[in-house]
Amino acid sequence: MTIIDFTHDAHLSSWVPGADGHHAFPVQNLPLGVFTPPGGARARGGVAIGDYILDLAAAAPLLPAEAQGPASLTNAPTLNALFARGHGAMTALRRALSALLTNFERVGDTTRLLYPMADCTLHLPFAIGDYTDFYTGIHHAVNVGSLLRPDNPLMENYKHIPIGYHGRVSSIQPSGVDVVRPHGQVVPAGQDVPVYLPTARLDHEVEMAIWVGQANPLGTAVPIAAAADYIGGLSLLNDWSARDVQTWEYRPLGPFLGKNFHSTISPWVVTTAALAPFRTAQPCRPAGDPELLPYLHNEGDLAAGAFAVTIESWLRTERMARAGMEPVRLSSASMTNMYWTPAQLIAHHTCNGCNLAPGDLLGTGTLSGTDRDSLGSLMELSRGGREKLVLPGGEARTFLEDGDELILTAYAEREGFARIGFGECRARILPAQGT
Amino acid sequence: MTIIDFTHDAHLSSWVPGADGHHAFPVQNLPLGVFTPPGGARARGGVAIGDYILDLAAAAPLLPAEAQGPASLTNAPTLNALFARGHGAMTALRRALSALLTNFERVGDTTRLLYPMADCTLHLPFAIGDYTDFYTGIHHAVNVGSLLRPDNPLMENYKHIPIGYHGRVSSIQPSGVDVVRPHGQVVPAGQDVPVYLPTARLDHEVEMAIWVGQANPLGTAVPIAAAADYIGGLSLLNDWSARDVQTWEYRPLGPFLGKNFHSTISPWVVTTAALAPFRTAQPCRPAGDPELLPYLHNEGDLAAGAFAVTIESWLRTERMARAGMEPVRLSSASMTNMYWTPAQLIAHHTCNGCNLAPGDLLGTGTLSGTDRDSLGSLMELSRGGREKLVLPGGEARTFLEDGDELILTAYAEREGFARIGFGECRARILPAQGT
Repeated sequence: MTIIDFTHDAHLSSWVPGADGHHAFPVQNLPLGVFTPPGGARARGGVAIGDYILDLAAAAPLLPAEAQGPASLTNAPTLNALFARGHGAMTALRRALSALLTNFERVGDTTRLLYPMADCTLHLPFAIGDYTDFYTGIHHAVNVGSLLRPDNPLMENYKHIPIGYHGRVSSIQPSGVDVVRPHGQVVPAGQDVPVYLPTARLDHEVEMAIWVGQANPLGTAVPIAAAADYIGGLSLLNDWSARDVQTWEYRPLGPFLGKNFHSTISPWVVTTAALAPFRTAQPCRPAGDPELLPYLHNEGDLAAGAFAVTIESWLRTERMARAGMEPVRLSSASMTNMYWTPAQLIAHHTCNGCNLAPGDLLGTGTLSGTDRDSLGSLMELSRGGREKLVLPGGEARTFLEDGDELILTAYAEREGFARIGFGECRARILPAQGT
Repeated sequence: MTIIDFTHDAHLSSWVPGADGHHAFPVQNLPLGVFTPPGGARARGGVAIGDYILDLAAAAPLLPAEAQGPASLTNAPTLNALFARGHGAMTALRRALSALLTNFERVGDTTRLLYPMADCTLHLPFAIGDYTDFYTGIHHAVNVGSLLRPDNPLMENYKHIPIGYHGRVSSIQPSGVDVVRPHGQVVPAGQDVPVYLPTARLDHEVEMAIWVGQANPLGTAVPIAAAADYIGGLSLLNDWSARDVQTWEYRPLGPFLGKNFHSTISPWVVTTAALAPFRTAQPCRPAGDPELLPYLHNEGDLAAGAFAVTIESWLRTERMARAGMEPVRLSSASMTNMYWTPAQLIAHHTCNGCNLAPGDLLGTGTLSGTDRDSLGSLMELSRGGREKLVLPGGEARTFLEDGDELILTAYAEREGFARIGFGECRARILPAQGT
């Protein structure tokens, strides 16, 4: 699962203009997505290279035999069929694309299959069957728990069992789709009867999206030693939340309308192959924590099952945008703030026989760190709405206001390897319906 | 929404042998489903009539013009496209099928399109986009709450807001698919550290499935006055539950692996049109309960928004089956035990702009009554596992054991109308993997 090969070589050079040293999509990355080229053609699979997208199915005839089948499967509005082929096919495709895009003799026949990304529309990469949101960010769990239960912030089950719940698939949208401020039942401070109003505590949550790449049949568990193979890749996920709605509705069955009005996904799937150089040990689970049950315990996974990915959140208010100001960074935190590895999430999710399928989405939960500038939600940054954040233009925020734009970005870097990025997960807040 | 027309006439007689007075599927019912005929042909839409299934798309040429389009849409492995056409198309189809199946001059050209149901395989009726499970059974909520909090069984939000959460789509199976006893983390009595074992508290839950028939766009709420039109029909739902797993995992985000290992659906969709004679007022919300917020308040819905459907659960152990004994009835309860109407569930689910689509599934939650013989789960019947149920053959149960078969059935009856049934929601418990 952590094979580093020629496709990761930092000295690889692509003939695609601007790809070498690109902030997100050098030839060492090769993330997959679904796009519509300019001119209204059908949506199809593509690979990002620099500021361009290569039409994968159209490029299939240019690839060696073992990669042609996988590439042809992307002549579809989703990547489900490609990822369902498994790691062998994905590896063959990655190697073939790396060879094609670094071979300067192929400029002539390949350039015509490249589209400027800025001229394309990007879509959700998968038809998502089920969406599970986990709660692996232990610092977030402590921060949120401290607001509710200062003496006992972490639930007694937290360090034994990966906590998760099912989310809404229909309202998951690609980056760029505006978020309508939701209405909901909220209980005004000092009262005990709810009113129906637009949320006054609209928040973001900095998460990573883990895409399932392989299916397990209903009734069969995936062993922890095989679990990493079931992960196809990663994107960014903003799990928008209406905190006042959530507080009133969540007992006893968990989050519902406070979460399911919209979720935003970044369109590029950074494959686990591209992330091989950035595997690392899981620093969040120190010695002395409860012993792992065997179905969650794998030495190799504990040694290199985490991903050293840095995730940043950025805010630009409408006034900042009008004044031509750049977004301000709200937070920067590592994906290693996960208390459980992605493989542990797969093993746990299937330990009761629950069946996963390619294109299923697993959210990590909010990945806050321990520092003030690593907090992945306004709930944490404003300490439950009690402290205002002052923005560069002089405005202040506790929660999001209409016209605010929230952007997530992420990258992985390590000495001796090319830095790779994830693109953007961006959306703007529109006023509530009827207001 | 409650139009009673000629298709409900109790004196209608069908030429299909055995249809008149059939326990479930007389010509007044006409439930829709997806089936594979004998001989390995493709799955397609059908309508149940007596002990037969009529191939809907094949029958399209025999129908009047306005019903041919809708019938042709069932030449597919799901009913999503048909229901998406809305109530006008569904009504035209129902009236045309009623006329065809009661016109004795059509025996000749229609009989060849009928298949004996016993020779067919029945499937899930829809490609399910999202599954939401509500908690509308107020007596169940009180019963379960009493086990945890005897002094304060109902949460403070219960009578203000329909409580619900998202469930797992991938593990929803049609009636007849065996349930593998799930493993999970459970904390043995008197201990505080979990072990990983097959559940020892496997339970069923008696629910109705409400199928969404029409879509609302993301960001728009469905007004309560229009909400009933978004409901396509009803089936039976058994929400299998591992109580020991659920108890340990559910804080703070709600049920997850204790529920998502399997859910069973009855294959026939009884349409809201078929149920028109059985609409009734909602008896569960007496005067004096909290005032409804306007987005949940509609006089017509309060007067006739509930469905008078009786749901029964039946158990047959392996030993009973071997001895040739019939299943024993565990419970009988009414769908009017819902504290919220189906229309209120639609209005609430969309009040934050969450988008529903045809084929989405809404579970009612467990529909227990107040009597001992109306309790819709073994958790309630055995008072949390403390009291054994003695079965006719002399065996005893607190929770389900391997080889047990659980069957849900339902019917609606009212003087002056033909009784209609829902068919069966049946499954048997298999031993845990590796045991």
